[in-house]
Amino acid sequence: MTGKKPKYVYHFGPNATDGHAGMKDLLGGKGANLAEMSALKLPVPPGFTITTEVCHYYYANHRSYPPELKSQIDEALKAIATQVGPKFNDEQNPLLLSVRSGARASMPGMMDTVLNLGMNDKTAAGLAKLSHDPRFAYDSYRRFIQMYANVVLDISGHHFEEILFQFKDKYNLDNDTDLTADHWQEVIKLYLAEVKRRQAQPFPTDPAEQLWGAIGAVFQSWMNPRAMTYRKLNNIPESWGTAVTVQAMVFGNMGDDCATGVAFTRNPSTGENQFYGEYLVNAQGEDVVAGIRTPQQITVAGKNAQASTLPAMEESMPALFAELSATRHRLEDHFRDVQDIEFTVQQGKLYLLQTRNAKRTNQAALKIAVDFAQEGRISQSEALLRIDPAALEQSLHPRLDPDAPRQLLATGLPASPGAASGKIAFSAEEAERLASLGESTILVRIETSPEDIHGMHAANGILTTRGGMTSHAAVVARGMGRPCVAGAGSIRVDYAAQTLTASGKDGTAILKAGEVITLDGASGKIFRGQVPTLQPEFSEDFKTIMGWADAARRLRIRANAETVPDATTARQLGAEGIGLCRTEHMFFDAERITPMREMILADDEEGRRRALAKLLPMQRGDFADLFRIMSGLPVTIRLLDPPLHEFLPQKPAEIAAVAAASGLSEAAITARVAALHEANPMLGHRGCRLGISYPEIYEMQVRAIFEGWILHSRDCANPTPPEIMIPLIATLAEMEVMKHLVDRVASEIMAESKVELPYSVGTMIELPRAALQAGNIARVAGFFSFGTNDLTQTTFGLSRDDAASFLGTYVGRGLLERDPFVSLDQHGVGELMGIAVARGRATSPGLKIGICGEHGGDPASVEFCHRLGLDYVSCSPYRVPIARLAAAQAELRSEKV
Amino acid sequence: MTGKKPKYVYHFGPNATDGHAGMKDLLGGKGANLAEMSALKLPVPPGFTITTEVCHYYYANHRSYPPELKSQIDEALKAIATQVGPKFNDEQNPLLLSVRSGARASMPGMMDTVLNLGMNDKTAAGLAKLSHDPRFAYDSYRRFIQMYANVVLDISGHHFEEILFQFKDKYNLDNDTDLTADHWQEVIKLYLAEVKRRQAQPFPTDPAEQLWGAIGAVFQSWMNPRAMTYRKLNNIPESWGTAVTVQAMVFGNMGDDCATGVAFTRNPSTGENQFYGEYLVNAQGEDVVAGIRTPQQITVAGKNAQASTLPAMEESMPALFAELSATRHRLEDHFRDVQDIEFTVQQGKLYLLQTRNAKRTNQAALKIAVDFAQEGRISQSEALLRIDPAALEQSLHPRLDPDAPRQLLATGLPASPGAASGKIAFSAEEAERLASLGESTILVRIETSPEDIHGMHAANGILTTRGGMTSHAAVVARGMGRPCVAGAGSIRVDYAAQTLTASGKDGTAILKAGEVITLDGASGKIFRGQVPTLQPEFSEDFKTIMGWADAARRLRIRANAETVPDATTARQLGAEGIGLCRTEHMFFDAERITPMREMILADDEEGRRRALAKLLPMQRGDFADLFRIMSGLPVTIRLLDPPLHEFLPQKPAEIAAVAAASGLSEAAITARVAALHEANPMLGHRGCRLGISYPEIYEMQVRAIFEGWILHSRDCANPTPPEIMIPLIATLAEMEVMKHLVDRVASEIMAESKVELPYSVGTMIELPRAALQAGNIARVAGFFSFGTNDLTQTTFGLSRDDAASFLGTYVGRGLLERDPFVSLDQHGVGELMGIAVARGRATSPGLKIGICGEHGGDPASVEFCHRLGLDYVSCSPYRVPIARLAAAQAELRSEKV
Repeated sequence: MTGKKPKYVYHFGPNATDGHAGMKDLLGGKGANLAEMSALKLPVPPGFTITTEVCHYYYANHRSYPPELKSQIDEALKAIATQVGPKFNDEQNPLLLSVRSGARASMPGMMDTVLNLGMNDKTAAGLAKLSHDPRFAYDSYRRFIQMYANVVLDISGHHFEEILFQFKDKYNLDNDTDLTADHWQEVIKLYLAEVKRRQAQPFPTDPAEQLWGAIGAVFQSWMNPRAMTYRKLNNIPESWGTAVTVQAMVFGNMGDDCATGVAFTRNPSTGENQFYGEYLVNAQGEDVVAGIRTPQQITVAGKNAQASTLPAMEESMPALFAELSATRHRLEDHFRDVQDIEFTVQQGKLYLLQTRNAKRTNQAALKIAVDFAQEGRISQSEALLRIDPAALEQSLHPRLDPDAPRQLLATGLPASPGAASGKIAFSAEEAERLASLGESTILVRIETSPEDIHGMHAANGILTTRGGMTSHAAVVARGMGRPCVAGAGSIRVDYAAQTLTASGKDGTAILKAGEVITLDGASGKIFRGQVPTLQPEFSEDFKTIMGWADAARRLRIRANAETVPDATTARQLGAEGIGLCRTEHMFFDAERITPMREMILADDEEGRRRALAKLLPMQRGDFADLFRIMSGLPVTIRLLDPPLHEFLPQKPAEIAAVAAASGLSEAAITARVAALHEANPMLGHRGCRLGISYPEIYEMQVRAIFEGWILHSRDCANPTPPEIMIPLIATLAEMEVMKHLVDRVASEIMAESKVELPYSVGTMIELPRAALQAGNIARVAGFFSFGTNDLTQTTFGLSRDDAASFLGTYVGRGLLERDPFVSLDQHGVGELMGIAVARGRATSPGLKIGICGEHGGDPASVEFCHRLGLDYVSCSPYRVPIARLAAAQAELRSEKV
Repeated sequence: MTGKKPKYVYHFGPNATDGHAGMKDLLGGKGANLAEMSALKLPVPPGFTITTEVCHYYYANHRSYPPELKSQIDEALKAIATQVGPKFNDEQNPLLLSVRSGARASMPGMMDTVLNLGMNDKTAAGLAKLSHDPRFAYDSYRRFIQMYANVVLDISGHHFEEILFQFKDKYNLDNDTDLTADHWQEVIKLYLAEVKRRQAQPFPTDPAEQLWGAIGAVFQSWMNPRAMTYRKLNNIPESWGTAVTVQAMVFGNMGDDCATGVAFTRNPSTGENQFYGEYLVNAQGEDVVAGIRTPQQITVAGKNAQASTLPAMEESMPALFAELSATRHRLEDHFRDVQDIEFTVQQGKLYLLQTRNAKRTNQAALKIAVDFAQEGRISQSEALLRIDPAALEQSLHPRLDPDAPRQLLATGLPASPGAASGKIAFSAEEAERLASLGESTILVRIETSPEDIHGMHAANGILTTRGGMTSHAAVVARGMGRPCVAGAGSIRVDYAAQTLTASGKDGTAILKAGEVITLDGASGKIFRGQVPTLQPEFSEDFKTIMGWADAARRLRIRANAETVPDATTARQLGAEGIGLCRTEHMFFDAERITPMREMILADDEEGRRRALAKLLPMQRGDFADLFRIMSGLPVTIRLLDPPLHEFLPQKPAEIAAVAAASGLSEAAITARVAALHEANPMLGHRGCRLGISYPEIYEMQVRAIFEGWILHSRDCANPTPPEIMIPLIATLAEMEVMKHLVDRVASEIMAESKVELPYSVGTMIELPRAALQAGNIARVAGFFSFGTNDLTQTTFGLSRDDAASFLGTYVGRGLLERDPFVSLDQHGVGELMGIAVARGRATSPGLKIGICGEHGGDPASVEFCHRLGLDYVSCSPYRVPIARLAAAQAELRSEKV
């Protein structure tokens, strides 16, 4: 700052380059890579980049520029002219410019671009003369007017299209290519008149004015809704800002010795090591994108694969192809990743306009990472760090056949990935009935509750019209690996009429129960009828990456699972144990809900014990199954957690059914339901509070665990001791009472069975108070497991079931960076976790600590847990591979630091 | 510990005393004071005290004693004998002992006592001979058997009463006094046979065995249910344990030169400086307590006041009276407090058996403290520290005339003090109707909700059959100063039949709407019909104490108030401002609920603004009133906090009424009610989340505050700037948005009105995350106010509305020391408060911080807030005097440390 002028403009080009690829924060990805290519002496048209600091200045200073900027730009324009010959605003030999945005991360198509800048009547005439191609010059001019008017002057493109359409109609011309230079000059006059009419000011003819207009438009486009949405979806902070890259235009449309194209150094769909790309002769870049003409393949192999009749560049321009091919290897060697290249051939000379790391499919990403590592270009660690863990999830679920036709009904939230089709069922019972007939079914509910769990299990997919990404439906569906679309607000469900009504732009569709719909849980889309799906395959590359990840990571990965299928899936996907078995899910089966309700409705402890005795053998069997499936691995079982009213019927018809089955009066049941009603069940009579009020419930569960473990131990030489987890502990006293209960039941069973029972008793840390009191609680608890769903609810004072109504607004307006139920709130919830870890281990060095909230499958949260020094994370079965990779990345990143 | 023998037994008596009054922790109150009196050379029969450490040893070691104890007791028994003459187990001249409990705090009648220990056939004969009074000796013996059997051998007293009854029947004797020594000897035989029959072992004749039995019984009585309940009610920790005091018996029943009595050095009911007490000639202490004979007054003044015909001790035993009277002054001078003395006269000689600080009424406590300070016996600080702040509350409310007859219906929880009678109203509307007719009314509900607030205001008292001390009804009633009995579970309310049914031991009473009941909010009792009440008076002593407290304290005291009567009361009771004005309470009036609902039911912002415009003038008026009442003092106004659904009707009939009034369809209203329904409203769309979703609501409120302030400022030279408080802040971003909103409205109004508006914008700290993020939030917030109700709910994961179902069990079983909604959980919630204070003031030195939760009126919590360095506490108006005193005590205690 001391007297030194701030540098806002960085040059690149054959003569003078003062940036490099490491400066993406300042120059954006595009500007930094152009500088890097220039420095490599690759043929890049010269230009300059205005830094992201100017963007910050722009927004912080009422959309104005730093005073130093103008002189720096003027100087840079002169430097370009020196290198290329043509000069800005030179009527004989005009320099034309492109003006593009460039953020730190690629945001393709989200922000604005202006090409051919510098055109006016005089420079167009000069260009016509110079190129001996007036049609090219005036075509470029009219393109510029339309683009500039659209981007800078905010005049919609369709006005110009309308003019062109009427013009062609008048002269009976079919295609744009039928227009001559004279035609275009007439069109240009109409275009300029249209601009003046729409904004009461003539189109700016001064190239300098044009340039400043375009720069401002690019900065402004950082805040356009499209870009804001893209950033939100891709977790790009608004604070990054965009750079602006201004570059000399080269033309692929000055004749048949000209071309423009896009190439990938490897196939971005499959990852195979093949040069891959398309080009068009005598065209500008936008023509490739627009898809008006069929592009030609770069390689003969590509041509053959596409069965194309058009010549490949390898054939038609062999020398240029060879130069491009050499560049391909040079860029891959230099950037150590697959590149996506834009190039233009102007009158036989190759220019590179952009290189960037290529976007790729998940499958290709795996293959490229593995191949690069095996080719020795990158290390295994680098390969691991290049895979986006979150993107893995899609490849673990069935997905819609991308080529199949479909009819969109509505879009909701992508709550649980995977695709499924089935008959609409409006109740859990109906879903179960259809499933028992072997029919595929989609459970459609306004929202789900724990009572619906059996129907969710039976269904192939779940659709709700209310609730967010962390609603009951979403959480349970992810846990079960069922595709789920949640909160599809444009759908109305009428249970009485047994219909759903989807209202959209194209009218209203009414579907009845039994009609087929298809859900795409990855996109949140709902389709009418059946859309074919593709099954996932686990490629060799996937297995290789997972193997490397397992070798690299320190964190153990467990799964949240309580059913045989879920536990089996979890183990197949690499889970190293069960971190959370939610025993309450075991009580919703038709067979079990009856004794469960009998227990809740009983008048006294004796009645409760009678009902619990019926549940004991079933729970015992459940636990024996889990121990068997996870043989050799730890299994953590949480005792009953939800408030008892969740198991009772709520609607009069259900109450009547229970009354009939139980022999109790409807009035008695209704009274019990009312007595158990809670204003805030999340903060109610649940967790260990139940174990304290009704110790007989926990006694039954503990007995079932130990007896199930004894059954398993008969078939297993060295069974892993069970881990019994107490929910909702807030005080040491609670933990003491619960530990004592487990110890007591254990000694009873040891006395009865003469079997020695090893076990540990730990606690969820899911209340702020438990985190603060962790030092005391660790005097009794054998392990901790963070229940970050509830810890987030209490720390934030935010109900997961209710937050959907405003959390979207919060994230959308930048009041929260991310939904704290999806990715751990590291500053609030995370601080409490850090306190609990430090205090727990101060009391009990080496205390085993894990996490079993939904966050266990979120990569950023996994990294945070790694940094906190947790022993394991536990997540939904289908997220286990994600967690394995994320844990490896966390370890690798922490080694780097 | 190094070789030195532990000392478990402390002596007292004329010759050797090794304890003193400062050793209450070790010797209990009784033992310590006996030692102190001995040291003062007052006539105390010799004895010894077994320390509370033995009690701890006893419970920690399977009810056994430290090995050193026996020899120490034997030695102490010898020392007694040396001083008095008679010896333990001496057949000629037997020493008899009393064995009594003594905890650190007095627990009158809660634990066991054995008198006349040392009796058997031989010692009884010896005593008969020695005293020349065989009747006295055998009467004492039979009393001992019955007492020992009851206390030590657990044989109920009624078995002995039955024997005595049959004996008298057989010999045709009417009264105990009709029995001769021979009769008693026969009865003794029957008693001894009964003991043997009931426990298959003879009654222990060895005095040493008797003594060990009695010591064990006293220790065991520490854990009897009576004592446990008393400790719970009086916050006495179980860990204190009891001491056992063994003392030589003296006898007030050896003839007419004997007497026994109880005296207070001042009148314990009024506090007046009068010697006050009762005695009985030829009696044992228990006869005074048992009330079989009418006791005589000690002083002539007392005799005259009672219009008694029996001679006063001052007349009948003038020398002894003079000695007692001198002792009175000596004890008061020495102990510097009013004493409660037990004495016995044995054959013309005065003995003091106990002295302790006298229990006294609240009124007396105030008078005594003031008098003692003004007499120069204690300092003003000591006087302040002697008043129990919690006990003040009762004297601020009307109370039942203690002499009026009454018919108890049921007992609930004493949820809000004061007494009220009125006609039963089963709905808020009916309560309002009755009130509008000038009738007194009691609102009777199963539970209350915010919709009932207008009815609660209209009612003279509130009765609910569900909910705890911190239910909605209880909290709101305390805030309003209405008497309230909550959770009266033995009453059933039938809204349809408009009846309440109270079931008790004496049968079932059914009362109809309109019948009169009386509530005693201080005891939780509900009476049939009208019980006359007495109005509170603020005595001069009360005012003196409050003045001293105000001079001593550092903490400022504000009130939670939003209505004109509440604010007026608060100011009268010494509030130094309003710490919490809950604006939502202003919307429940019949006049206001309609536009409020119109606002909530509106389709769009414009509709909401139209409705808000109707509310603006009313709110403006409310705020102008508050500023006027609190002129010169700060007023903190919290913007709308509860979720909107709390304002909507829930029941079909109400919905129909709103539909008719609003012109909306019932279906539309039902749909909106359903859309706004929340699973956990406590964690829902409320507080600043509303301000972010619907800024127009907060804009209206902020405008009303500023416009109301401008109205007030016209009549006030130097108005205090308003403090605007944002509820439920969790993040800095929320605070920024809200601050910006207030600033914007302020500048609009300054521009419109040309009035300069001073103001500050602060936040509630009521979420754990806010406490953790306090350092950031303080960058924007002008002040903090701890909302400890919600902070307790979230830190503990405990819903105030639902916790009643299990919190009682928790406190009862010692899992929680106190209800955390009544007294701050200092270890959990308190730690978060400490974090917030430290971080907030690190960012913003001198940041003003207060508390406005219910805890602001709890003395222990006030002391905690003082230690945390808060600037003020804010509480219900009627708790302001309590908080003033508690704050002074906190300051005085912290000076001491």
